[in-house]
Amino acid sequence: MINAGWYTELSPMWPGQGLTLKIKEILYRAKSDFQDVCVFESESMGTVLLLDGVIQCTDRDEFSYQEMIAHIPMCSLERPAKKVLVVGGGDGGVLRELARYPYVEEIHMAEIDRMVPEVSKRFFPEVVWPANGRRIEWTYIHTYIYIHTFIHSTSSSRNSQRALPIKTPFFEALHRAVRPGGIVCTQAESLWLHLDIIKALADMCTEVFQGGSVSYATTTIPSYPSGQIGMLVCAKARSGAEGEGDGPLDPRIARQQEPGPLPALGVGELRYYSHEVHSAAFALPVFAKKALGGCLTFQ
Amino acid sequence: MINAGWYTELSPMWPGQGLTLKIKEILYRAKSDFQDVCVFESESMGTVLLLDGVIQCTDRDEFSYQEMIAHIPMCSLERPAKKVLVVGGGDGGVLRELARYPYVEEIHMAEIDRMVPEVSKRFFPEVVWPANGRRIEWTYIHTYIYIHTFIHSTSSSRNSQRALPIKTPFFEALHRAVRPGGIVCTQAESLWLHLDIIKALADMCTEVFQGGSVSYATTTIPSYPSGQIGMLVCAKARSGAEGEGDGPLDPRIARQQEPGPLPALGVGELRYYSHEVHSAAFALPVFAKKALGGCLTFQ
Repeated sequence: MINAGWYTELSPMWPGQGLTLKIKEILYRAKSDFQDVCVFESESMGTVLLLDGVIQCTDRDEFSYQEMIAHIPMCSLERPAKKVLVVGGGDGGVLRELARYPYVEEIHMAEIDRMVPEVSKRFFPEVVWPANGRRIEWTYIHTYIYIHTFIHSTSSSRNSQRALPIKTPFFEALHRAVRPGGIVCTQAESLWLHLDIIKALADMCTEVFQGGSVSYATTTIPSYPSGQIGMLVCAKARSGAEGEGDGPLDPRIARQQEPGPLPALGVGELRYYSHEVHSAAFALPVFAKKALGGCLTFQ
Repeated sequence: MINAGWYTELSPMWPGQGLTLKIKEILYRAKSDFQDVCVFESESMGTVLLLDGVIQCTDRDEFSYQEMIAHIPMCSLERPAKKVLVVGGGDGGVLRELARYPYVEEIHMAEIDRMVPEVSKRFFPEVVWPANGRRIEWTYIHTYIYIHTFIHSTSSSRNSQRALPIKTPFFEALHRAVRPGGIVCTQAESLWLHLDIIKALADMCTEVFQGGSVSYATTTIPSYPSGQIGMLVCAKARSGAEGEGDGPLDPRIARQQEPGPLPALGVGELRYYSHEVHSAAFALPVFAKKALGGCLTFQ
């Protein structure tokens, strides 16, 4: 809602509350084939990208979410990832973070809306697009179709009210797509606002990732409702091959090196993620641990 | 700011942004000798207490801050605390948390405004006032005067713009008041909003607590600006007495048992704090660690 120079983020997903930001200037407004796209310059959070009126990212704090959702799964893996699929990463932040890993050979991007990367490239200079000599393949279709056409998967989306229902077959397809010991990491809402959604998602993932593990990691991010967001880290059962540990993969342990900067490509030092922050992110407040205890493997 | 049934928390301390809450009903409005006091029922956060228009606590999330600011220092101590001073704890939440420790013999409360505990007792049933057979002594004077009259100390306050300037002599007085190995814990603002204030406070405390330690612990709390707040944990140098460790006290280690519920007094199980959350609270995001690195003993 925009009113007299102020924007308030209202949504049925967080009724009766919302972050209010002072607008300096509206930079862009358009309707893509899928959603309303708006970019404005705020007084306190830098440039803000709205999709259907909901904050997608801000200059000020996007690195928290982007670094955590990229590096927690990447650093938890026993064997470094060579191929990565990003579902709905049109703002480019996760792509920037993946560029830090020299051993990643292929990145596949599935994004429904061509307008999102176009707008992000234009208005978010901090989000660079470093191909870094590797293959990056974009597919502009709905995740639902992508799944059934390419790898049979899906993910939840930040704008959950617009997402397709979370259904077991989609996560089963994702589970099939990753190698043994591989990880599917999905945005998983706020402990303060959406414990019921997190529980349903975790229960379903636990069913799908049998023999593997399902855990929740948290990060702070002022521009998200409640200032906190988390991700479910779902690890596929290991194959028992040489060099693999026994039992389900514990994602609280960072196994791969912290990735560094790539100054030549405009990718600076990490600003949020470290191995210490990685492990601490799995320590949940008692109220959340109680509510989710039965459906998380490690917490 | 209250407008058309909605409240927005605006302040020069966080310019250009604020949490917006839908008001169900305004329950109380008065002017005490010191400040505007307002209580309203919100749609999403339960009962909300405002002091001079700034959120002091809400039903929904007060336990996060109250548990963390009470139990992190209490559980870090090598020798259990028998006497505790609470400065500005008029809403009663910290008193409730301290009641969990059977070995605490005396609690001293210094609160400027009689209206705050009166209003809290009336409108916040979750915040019980359990004396639990021990001595609780209230003093209703300004912290500044309390310090100079009783123990010569001060603290920062949530409404920092109304607080007296943070000055070395006040913290020197607090430092004198605690025993060797004792802890002074003060609210210390948000990493996302106030790194400059935190740095100034930590630098000053490091100067005062020489031979001891100064560290920052964080908690999530949706009703605070940015959804995150922290506390400085300042430990006085140990005396070298028997049973004490060497060097400065590391508050990341929980040494005392997690306190339990007191059902007879209406104090339930802990809802946020655990030993695991205690240690994780000191793992700071890289941007904060870099900014504060030089002035924190443990992080």
